[in-house]
Amino acid sequence: MFRSGDNQPMIQRRQRLLGSAYRLFYDEPLHVVRGEDVWLIDRDGRRYLDAYNNVPLLGHCRPEVVSAMSRQAGELNTHSRYLHEAILDYAEHLLGWFPDVLDRAVFGCSGSEANEFALRVARACTGKRGVLVTECAYHGTGFITSQLNGSFHGQRESWIATVPAPDFYRSNPESFLAGIDRAIEGLRRSGYGVAALLLDTAFTSDGIHLPPPEVFGAAVDKVRAAGGVFIADEVQAGFARLGEGLWGFQRAGLAPDLVTLGKPIGNGHPLAATIVRHQHLDAFSRDAHYFNTFGGNPVSAVVGRMVLEVFEQEKLADNARSTGRYLHQQLAQLADRHVRIGDLRGAGLMAALELVDGNAPDQAAAHQVVNAMRQRGVLISSEGPSDNVLKIRPPLTFRETHVDQLVAVLGECLALISSP
Amino acid sequence: MFRSGDNQPMIQRRQRLLGSAYRLFYDEPLHVVRGEDVWLIDRDGRRYLDAYNNVPLLGHCRPEVVSAMSRQAGELNTHSRYLHEAILDYAEHLLGWFPDVLDRAVFGCSGSEANEFALRVARACTGKRGVLVTECAYHGTGFITSQLNGSFHGQRESWIATVPAPDFYRSNPESFLAGIDRAIEGLRRSGYGVAALLLDTAFTSDGIHLPPPEVFGAAVDKVRAAGGVFIADEVQAGFARLGEGLWGFQRAGLAPDLVTLGKPIGNGHPLAATIVRHQHLDAFSRDAHYFNTFGGNPVSAVVGRMVLEVFEQEKLADNARSTGRYLHQQLAQLADRHVRIGDLRGAGLMAALELVDGNAPDQAAAHQVVNAMRQRGVLISSEGPSDNVLKIRPPLTFRETHVDQLVAVLGECLALISSP
Repeated sequence: MFRSGDNQPMIQRRQRLLGSAYRLFYDEPLHVVRGEDVWLIDRDGRRYLDAYNNVPLLGHCRPEVVSAMSRQAGELNTHSRYLHEAILDYAEHLLGWFPDVLDRAVFGCSGSEANEFALRVARACTGKRGVLVTECAYHGTGFITSQLNGSFHGQRESWIATVPAPDFYRSNPESFLAGIDRAIEGLRRSGYGVAALLLDTAFTSDGIHLPPPEVFGAAVDKVRAAGGVFIADEVQAGFARLGEGLWGFQRAGLAPDLVTLGKPIGNGHPLAATIVRHQHLDAFSRDAHYFNTFGGNPVSAVVGRMVLEVFEQEKLADNARSTGRYLHQQLAQLADRHVRIGDLRGAGLMAALELVDGNAPDQAAAHQVVNAMRQRGVLISSEGPSDNVLKIRPPLTFRETHVDQLVAVLGECLALISSP
Repeated sequence: MFRSGDNQPMIQRRQRLLGSAYRLFYDEPLHVVRGEDVWLIDRDGRRYLDAYNNVPLLGHCRPEVVSAMSRQAGELNTHSRYLHEAILDYAEHLLGWFPDVLDRAVFGCSGSEANEFALRVARACTGKRGVLVTECAYHGTGFITSQLNGSFHGQRESWIATVPAPDFYRSNPESFLAGIDRAIEGLRRSGYGVAALLLDTAFTSDGIHLPPPEVFGAAVDKVRAAGGVFIADEVQAGFARLGEGLWGFQRAGLAPDLVTLGKPIGNGHPLAATIVRHQHLDAFSRDAHYFNTFGGNPVSAVVGRMVLEVFEQEKLADNARSTGRYLHQQLAQLADRHVRIGDLRGAGLMAALELVDGNAPDQAAAHQVVNAMRQRGVLISSEGPSDNVLKIRPPLTFRETHVDQLVAVLGECLALISSP
């Protein structure tokens, strides 16, 4: 099965056409040709259990979504400066999933765009400039959102301040909150002030952390006391991913000023939204308009709405809770048996297994496990500041039988980890 | 036909759901339900000649594009960290439309994303920070691209410098080039240096200007001498819009370092690309990767490729040239007859009519004409620093019969302009 040479011509062609900035997953990259529910199928017909991709929220190639898209694309696809029902029906349905105070929806094409628009609103409604993010956050690929990422090398805009994530495995609540204090003070001294605290509510790229609500709330309170707003980035944690409520901020008992949505919102179609309180949007609108050529077009709108409908019909929030609970039970049993699993974190259908060698982050072990699992037909990945955290984040149609396959293969692969 | 009350409930619903940042076209907004070639159809079945939308390059709801999208969406839609033929076939086809030195394609979801990525590359490959744009440019809706826009109110990042557009109706070559000199000197003194000159090659939002190649070239030379790169924003001018060559930079005899593509590239599907020289991309890749969750996914890639195929099969570049020539001949006759047309500019299927009262820009007249045409079933819009420039920018399937209808209605409406 393992024919490492076969992909070489295609990899070289890719290098020649797309160039040096793109990366591929896995030592032996996967050449996929078809997707179906929780399965990715390669060119040899081999089926891989997809335990990594959150974008196909309803499963790959969901027929209802494909049909809705095709139908609308054959009728009309144009921008939002004409009146059309689809964007309104979608906005109404989507806003129904949020607390009443979050009462306006603004559409874009990617989570990056949603976060960048949220930051524009934050600046306008606070009159301040500074932005706080965690050290290893991921908030997008735009000019500014890329500078907010932990992976950014280079000179950041000086109004961006980073704080340690609330990593209670390697740290404590004080270091997160002390970091917030320091950042606020630094932005105050430099004259920028605090416009926004932007946080992924599951701290996914920081290694997946779910701090106690009182710690999370204390950070938000500090930022609000400094005059800033709280933007909840739900691109990864949202849509019931965490198995309890629809949004990560609800799980933490928070009331954000803005919420940003991306990845799973269109089941793969390029769509994103910023949910905002009308007071903040009105402050933005005093001096600016918003227009996004593709954002909220009729095709994107019917796709987004169909995602919500199928999600509700299939009670995927319930599945995220129940299958998520089963997943975490099974992973806990593995963690009990494997000394190299230093910590198990996450909730619902988002799980992190921190691999260690003694106490030290073991990036090599994570790399080995991720690739060994891929060879055995199960797809996950790794992340975190030391890239030693196994990240499990499947479509929400993942069932107990898929958990069993995932955990069995994971167990096999953990046993392979080279001895220290 | 004119029933201004009918749309009010929908406009109010829109205000309640989407809020204050969105705008609608026309005093009597258009409620569209269907699109077909160069026609938009409202809920009463009335057909409007679309002489404004460049996004449906091949005409609205082009069946070949809809079919390709639907077929691929039913098979696989995932990100670019797996191997897939579609993104490579598309990149190869697209790069074939560019000079050999522009040899890598990087994909995103919107022109904003393409421009923001180009600026990231510019910074990495020059080691400098400053960016030059024209005063009334439009380069997108991201955090930074929105600050590059003429419509931006607020405090720009201090490394953004603006220069007057090469407006030879109201100005002269010296003012554009002197502006470039001043901006370069300002960025040098502030320590930022010059990373990039980013220009829409038709200066569309500045009022549509096509400066002589030697003037355009002199500006680029000055920026290169200062260590910066030239980014050609072809989001509006590209895809043969100007009726001579595929790209605005070719018309001006320029060799850009990067080219950005958006709007028409997917005939309405959210897709964009940055075309870049491998040396510059390699400089970027030394410290960074690029990943865009939706950019270049298999669905977007087959859509983009089908757009290129239909464009070639139907010889739309030839049509842009011949129908564009006819359009400008007809508009020139109108301009001869109407003293309120101060200037006729543009080329191919992009035309600008500057409305004046004596010498002064006449925004009210432009507003009146645009709305009177909409009532008579022809859609255009206005733009420019004083919003007095009629902008004509139809799908590339526009034919002489459509030009006749457009020009007849335009003539009628010009006759309505209130006397000074």
